[in-house]
Amino acid sequence: MSSAQPLQATPLSPRTQVTLSVDCMGGDHGPAVTLPACKAFLDRHPEASLVLVGSADALAPAAAWPRTTLRTATEVVTMYDPVEVALRRKRDSSMRVAIAALKADDGGVPAAHACVSAGNTGALMAVARYVLKTLEDIDRPAIATVMPNRKGGFTTVLDLGANVDCTPEHLLQFAEMGAALVSAVSGIDEPSVGLLNIGEEAIKGSETIKRAGELLRAAHQAGQLNFHGNVEGNDIFLGTTDIVVCDGFVGNVLLKTSEGLASMLSDFIKQEFTRNPLTKLAALAAMPVLNRFKRRVDPRGYNGAALLGLRGLVFKSHGSADAYAFEQALGRAYDAARNRLLERVQDRIAAPSTGTAGPSALAA
Amino acid sequence: MSSAQPLQATPLSPRTQVTLSVDCMGGDHGPAVTLPACKAFLDRHPEASLVLVGSADALAPAAAWPRTTLRTATEVVTMYDPVEVALRRKRDSSMRVAIAALKADDGGVPAAHACVSAGNTGALMAVARYVLKTLEDIDRPAIATVMPNRKGGFTTVLDLGANVDCTPEHLLQFAEMGAALVSAVSGIDEPSVGLLNIGEEAIKGSETIKRAGELLRAAHQAGQLNFHGNVEGNDIFLGTTDIVVCDGFVGNVLLKTSEGLASMLSDFIKQEFTRNPLTKLAALAAMPVLNRFKRRVDPRGYNGAALLGLRGLVFKSHGSADAYAFEQALGRAYDAARNRLLERVQDRIAAPSTGTAGPSALAA
Repeated sequence: MSSAQPLQATPLSPRTQVTLSVDCMGGDHGPAVTLPACKAFLDRHPEASLVLVGSADALAPAAAWPRTTLRTATEVVTMYDPVEVALRRKRDSSMRVAIAALKADDGGVPAAHACVSAGNTGALMAVARYVLKTLEDIDRPAIATVMPNRKGGFTTVLDLGANVDCTPEHLLQFAEMGAALVSAVSGIDEPSVGLLNIGEEAIKGSETIKRAGELLRAAHQAGQLNFHGNVEGNDIFLGTTDIVVCDGFVGNVLLKTSEGLASMLSDFIKQEFTRNPLTKLAALAAMPVLNRFKRRVDPRGYNGAALLGLRGLVFKSHGSADAYAFEQALGRAYDAARNRLLERVQDRIAAPSTGTAGPSALAA
Repeated sequence: MSSAQPLQATPLSPRTQVTLSVDCMGGDHGPAVTLPACKAFLDRHPEASLVLVGSADALAPAAAWPRTTLRTATEVVTMYDPVEVALRRKRDSSMRVAIAALKADDGGVPAAHACVSAGNTGALMAVARYVLKTLEDIDRPAIATVMPNRKGGFTTVLDLGANVDCTPEHLLQFAEMGAALVSAVSGIDEPSVGLLNIGEEAIKGSETIKRAGELLRAAHQAGQLNFHGNVEGNDIFLGTTDIVVCDGFVGNVLLKTSEGLASMLSDFIKQEFTRNPLTKLAALAAMPVLNRFKRRVDPRGYNGAALLGLRGLVFKSHGSADAYAFEQALGRAYDAARNRLLERVQDRIAAPSTGTAGPSALAA
């Protein structure tokens, strides 16, 4: 951290009681995955409560669970439902009811602190935006996820697809929100931010990127942000910075490219080891080592993307998550809520040097 | 191929004699790598000739080689030279002289058909553009490379960094040039083209991408291009299409992200297998299998990116290429020249349905 001024302190004390609302019907597997995950999560988090949302039938097994409230919803947003269907037709979807549970005025039960769904991303963002609205001064909510890096940690990348065209101001807000997320979830007080570009030099990139770099440098000089400078695609895996900021188009492409490459390489390894009896014998010897490798890069271990910039915490689990992966998403939401991510985002966005963004014209 | 009309025939007969000009000083290793590669290439290609460019000292070992012309150049563009230095100060660089060897009026020796350099990409593109100029109707040259896919083949991706801001017309030209490249180098007559986007639906993406999709669909309907539709990042590795088109910013990010991820995963595997005596024993058993895997995804095997849209064929080798990798780049350039890539690009660009691009204002 080379800034002359210190970054702002983070005086927020952790919440002792956390309630998560869970869309139990979302994802490829629905309650078959979400319920066991919720049960395991409850067992491991004695200070957590859950609001489970789904059809009465689906939730029946959870009727006698401790620290659990059941809330029925008659509809389910499928993985293929267009945004309009999720938004306008399925008004009693488990997704929507789970998100609405974050609002303080929602019935007699206290509001939940964070919501988790494995439902389709576009619908989740749209419904969350509609139900919760965006934070003041936030034009565009963003989606942040983590990718493993060589340092043994994770690089947080945002935006991952919520916004295809971004202004420099949006990119600055993504940086601020990403910093709030990393400080809340990973406990890093002054996470470093890199601006994804096609070269490390400040003169590289499009006009939008160059101007974003100026805004980020100004925020750094004002002591609001630990801005490292430009980074390139490979820096995500080097762990050069804690956070990498990019527009949603680029973020989505790099995420899907990475998933595609990792999956191809893993299949190639499998194919080579199952080629013939001899290679299968080698596989037997190599299995413990390969399993260790697999665990190390297992995407289930860091499942749970954050929707940032909304008046409520929403986490998105991978649609194909199994119970273990879904439990990790619950854990991430729990950590975020416990460490007051929402307040951290608000604090950062309200800070003077970052109040340059336009009105939240798209919030409605 | 679902188009009603057939694609244009490719009546170009292969060239029997091919001459490559080689910047022997470029790359991280210079002549120590390029000369052995050239020698091996000559041995394997009895109908090829080389024009070797470099300092007199460096080229001395090649003095008695068959089918080889030596041409001295007094300067070298380093990997760190800014474009301006390569362009304006080092006028007698091996890079520039090698590119100039493509011009018919260049001294008494017949013009070379393609040029190969491992020098820095920015400088290579700038010098090539300055010396050769762009083809008529081409605003922006592009850089195309291949990435391995699950089908056992390769996906050609462009642009990879020459152009940060692209218009829909540029993306259409990239598609045409990519199709010419794949048909020349891989022998696929009607290579399929995918437009990189963040969803398969035609309504996804930025305005530029949507409009590019319209142009590509029109070219498909006119029988000029085998346009598949939108593809996503993972489709590169699935091999959904032969060609994936994107702007240079996105292309550069996805290339560097892929390189970074592949390199991290390979290092993780190495780390796990060298962790302790037991894992080292397992490595011994697994070694033949792992080596087979390594060969399968070895980037050296498909080294050699094409600079497309210029009035001459220029191929860029990875700067860190070893002799094997550099020879592959020579081989790609050879295949392209032999199969008349330049004429193929010209034919495609001149075709009526794709003559929609603006004047070549940036050609000078």
